Amino acid sequence: MPNSPVQDYIEAIHAELAGDNSGALADYIPELTHADPEWFGIAIATADGAVYETGHSRQPFTIQSISKPFVYGLALEDHGRGDVFRKIGVEPTGDAFNSISLESRSGRPFNPMINAGAIATTGLVLGRSHETRFQRILDLFQRYCGSALSVDQAVYESESRTGHRNRAIGHMLRNFNVLQENPRPILENYFRQCSILVNCRDLAMIGATLANGGVQPVTGEAVLRGEYVESVLSVMASCGMYDFAGEWIYRVGLPAKSGVGGGIVAVLPGHLGIGVFSPLLDDRGNSVRGIQACQRLSLDLNLHFLNSPRSRRPAIRHRLTGADMRTRVQRPARQREALSALGNTIRIYELQGSLSFPTVETVLREVLGEGFPVHFVILDLGRVCSIDTSAARLLFDLLIQLCSAGFRMVFSGARPHAAFRRYCLSHLGPERQDLWLHFCDARDALEWCEDQILGEAASCEECSPGDLELLAGFQDSEKAAVLALMRACTFDAAETVFREGDPADALFFLTSGRAEARILLPSGEQQTVARFRPGVAFGEMAVIEDAPRSATLVAVDACSCLRLPIEDFRGLAETHPAIRMRLLENLLAVLSRDRRSANREAAALHR
Amino acid sequence: MPNSPVQDYIEAIHAELAGDNSGALADYIPELTHADPEWFGIAIATADGAVYETGHSRQPFTIQSISKPFVYGLALEDHGRGDVFRKIGVEPTGDAFNSISLESRSGRPFNPMINAGAIATTGLVLGRSHETRFQRILDLFQRYCGSALSVDQAVYESESRTGHRNRAIGHMLRNFNVLQENPRPILENYFRQCSILVNCRDLAMIGATLANGGVQPVTGEAVLRGEYVESVLSVMASCGMYDFAGEWIYRVGLPAKSGVGGGIVAVLPGHLGIGVFSPLLDDRGNSVRGIQACQRLSLDLNLHFLNSPRSRRPAIRHRLTGADMRTRVQRPARQREALSALGNTIRIYELQGSLSFPTVETVLREVLGEGFPVHFVILDLGRVCSIDTSAARLLFDLLIQLCSAGFRMVFSGARPHAAFRRYCLSHLGPERQDLWLHFCDARDALEWCEDQILGEAASCEECSPGDLELLAGFQDSEKAAVLALMRACTFDAAETVFREGDPADALFFLTSGRAEARILLPSGEQQTVARFRPGVAFGEMAVIEDAPRSATLVAVDACSCLRLPIEDFRGLAETHPAIRMRLLENLLAVLSRDRRSANREAAALHR
Repeated sequence: MPNSPVQDYIEAIHAELAGDNSGALADYIPELTHADPEWFGIAIATADGAVYETGHSRQPFTIQSISKPFVYGLALEDHGRGDVFRKIGVEPTGDAFNSISLESRSGRPFNPMINAGAIATTGLVLGRSHETRFQRILDLFQRYCGSALSVDQAVYESESRTGHRNRAIGHMLRNFNVLQENPRPILENYFRQCSILVNCRDLAMIGATLANGGVQPVTGEAVLRGEYVESVLSVMASCGMYDFAGEWIYRVGLPAKSGVGGGIVAVLPGHLGIGVFSPLLDDRGNSVRGIQACQRLSLDLNLHFLNSPRSRRPAIRHRLTGADMRTRVQRPARQREALSALGNTIRIYELQGSLSFPTVETVLREVLGEGFPVHFVILDLGRVCSIDTSAARLLFDLLIQLCSAGFRMVFSGARPHAAFRRYCLSHLGPERQDLWLHFCDARDALEWCEDQILGEAASCEECSPGDLELLAGFQDSEKAAVLALMRACTFDAAETVFREGDPADALFFLTSGRAEARILLPSGEQQTVARFRPGVAFGEMAVIEDAPRSATLVAVDACSCLRLPIEDFRGLAETHPAIRMRLLENLLAVLSRDRRSANREAAALHR
Repeated sequence: MPNSPVQDYIEAIHAELAGDNSGALADYIPELTHADPEWFGIAIATADGAVYETGHSRQPFTIQSISKPFVYGLALEDHGRGDVFRKIGVEPTGDAFNSISLESRSGRPFNPMINAGAIATTGLVLGRSHETRFQRILDLFQRYCGSALSVDQAVYESESRTGHRNRAIGHMLRNFNVLQENPRPILENYFRQCSILVNCRDLAMIGATLANGGVQPVTGEAVLRGEYVESVLSVMASCGMYDFAGEWIYRVGLPAKSGVGGGIVAVLPGHLGIGVFSPLLDDRGNSVRGIQACQRLSLDLNLHFLNSPRSRRPAIRHRLTGADMRTRVQRPARQREALSALGNTIRIYELQGSLSFPTVETVLREVLGEGFPVHFVILDLGRVCSIDTSAARLLFDLLIQLCSAGFRMVFSGARPHAAFRRYCLSHLGPERQDLWLHFCDARDALEWCEDQILGEAASCEECSPGDLELLAGFQDSEKAAVLALMRACTFDAAETVFREGDPADALFFLTSGRAEARILLPSGEQQTVARFRPGVAFGEMAVIEDAPRSATLVAVDACSCLRLPIEDFRGLAETHPAIRMRLLENLLAVLSRDRRSANREAAALHR
């Protein structure tokens, strides 16, 4: 297959920006001056784990300040938001990365992205010893990247030897009791944390993990609890680019973090992570080509996180009435007529995507705004990816509102959303569990609603042989002739009438009880494809087409049938051609009606 | 219908927070102390114009600093981003709202949300006179709110009389040449701008307009050009809440702006605007209940703008092969067989929602990653809401890549996306316009692909009467007997064979040319519902059901048909019962095949 235009695009951007040699290598740590000014890599990783990369995307470099927001996330997990907030603020300072920036009275660092806040953060990481505390930090980044990482020993030693300013900050934090222990081993861990080696692709993966709600897209591991993802992204958005934060939001609009190693990680929540690397830095300590690449990507690909059209999408995939949609059940004419006038009292909403307040609000508005008298509301969740807590609560409130007003609300396809089911059942309490009505899919939910309309009893009352659907329009003598060919037979509940693949040996007419047709899915599961009520025929397709049975027919409860052997059905051509003709015409009418209802459903689905 | 749970929810929040009487009325403008400390309103407006409101949501108050980002948007429209940026920065200061905060050498205000930046912004609004300049500002807010607004004259005079600090800032800006004219009338306009009266509902509507990409949701008016919406939201996100900005992003996570009148406007891009009002302020000049309400709404409704699950949704609604989907064309058996083995070489992707880089990337990946030999790719855009510039470019690149590799890529349903069509055609240039292949919908696109596989000529070659589909399995003598009842007839191109509603007087067998069935839509438009190729029958449904014609039948090119009058078809029951039986059986087989293919398509669509 041809190249991906995405790959072509990042290669073009890379070629275009590689020529810019402005900026200088970081010199505040002697080791960093050994970098090659030509190095330049770009990588994009999507929230589902696809990666596009170009240039020196596999060149290792030290993570430096890019480590800060992620260790902050670890501290949040260790202590909770409240405790961490008491130690470290979240307010941007407009100052440079290495400014000391402590609040005047408390000594609390303004935010976790300046060195003071980051050192305090490293001090918050729990562990029995300083060594295990560092191992937790290294392990954190390994889980974000989904690969083994190591520390650049030379950079670490260089930082440790020359980091006087950071040592000063550490002691100042100890002075203010922000650090409540000897700052020296914490500073060593901080220097080692900054010296972890990553590459561009790793950064993109770290970003994609945040974009994916804290779950590493390739390994599937939950690296950061979902509730803290927003917090980490928030400090990146407000303080991630030091005194360039405002302009960064304005021009690039992606929560991001840069490091003096030359790396930048940026995140478009829900969608992707970007890793760029080039060691030539500007005055603020940000990678020159890195910033340019991020600006270009954001502009060309419309990635600004406040871009509104991207985030809009309809929650309602289809809205149908009971008259539009088909169930799996074959009902006799009387029931079809009873329902035809009332199909509009059933409304079916097929929802899709991630349900949250804004999307569910439109659903509530639509459901509550219906003009026609509605008695049943089916919410089909079969295509919903996730239901957040606010969406769960609003859907539950809707259920209660509708039930109190005398309506019935039915869910379908909610099986993957166990938390939502639990929420509803626990809030309903033991006395009202029956208000939680759930079916496998919307067709089954609709069938239940129809049965409610017909009344449980009426929905499967017996049919006398003379009233059989396929004998409609027959004269009494013709009926008698056909019925004479049929043999009554009964089946116990759960008994198999015929099996998928059997030769077609007869046509069946159901006179009492309920039967259903099931097929075997490739997964080995049985799926019900049709249900039959007294008065209708089954097994006619294989007879018409002279093909093996396409489904297994099972009696749901005890059933009575009339069985017309295939040779007698064929023999009618000789013995009673007029009867056979009428049977064929009635079969054609059934198929023709079926085609019309299928067309009506298809039209409703494409509205 | 019952109450909306959304309305119930905001009423509950309102009742809960109304009891908090902490904070104080603003006193820096004497007039503001006349406010009633009990006032408290909440309103939410969605990006499609629904409003929920409670409490004192209609109580007018002065807009104050909330005006700043919107006038900044007007300045961006008047001068462009570059010129405005040279006058006013976008960097948060961490300082209080009334700090002078000018860059030390240039005197450039740090950002447009502090008073210095806002006064400079007001100075940038164009107009012949200071009066027309103010009218443009007032008109701007009227267009955002969709209603008439006025200025609170008393507050304006009070501000004008006591605004010494702002006057100092104005003269300082003049000193640095940021303002290049007499600052006094600009200051008057700034005081008047701050004294515009709005209510909570207005603020929610202003927010909803930004959430809706700059288009007022109710009036449909484009109030702010889409390209500047991100810029306005960016300065709100980074500097909208003064020295509370970092904590606001961390805790609430919505671009927002507060004013000392007691109002706060907050925006969830793509979804909604929030307006809250309560005149009791905290030390930073933000409404106490307003902040609490926003925090509760954000937390309870999961509105944080960096919340990732909300923004994810699949771009591909359905993926099908040519073997799964049905066209509108009825083909003879030979063509069906030729296609049945090759249906998998056609892939159909039905896309949905707003197409942007992240969503289109998944489409490219899917299309380019197909394993089976694919020759035709159909992208159906019928359910796409919008295509941004990056998505347009990537889709175009995909078209070029696939064409160069010998594939054909076909679009359908792109009619509402004229800009995308223009983009493709202009980038194809005059010589390659034929690479832009577009059809009304995916079924028509599929039909074209099938015709390509069959070869244009083969797809509509003549059929000899003996090979007609419905005569399959007939003995020669039976064929002769039926053919003897038929009359040859011809139709010119575009001639009508029969009309919707006509009585069914005959069955037709097409032997050459192409015909199609059309229905009249309620809109008055004609829609093609079926197409016929030589060898197939048409008009049989009405004959079977003895009902009026359900569609109008039109010869597309010159057609030859055989016509079997309905009385002869019925008469067969007497004269040739065996032939009539066989015809009915063949009709049953056609309908049965049709049902199977409909079931297959439905199964594929529900996969």
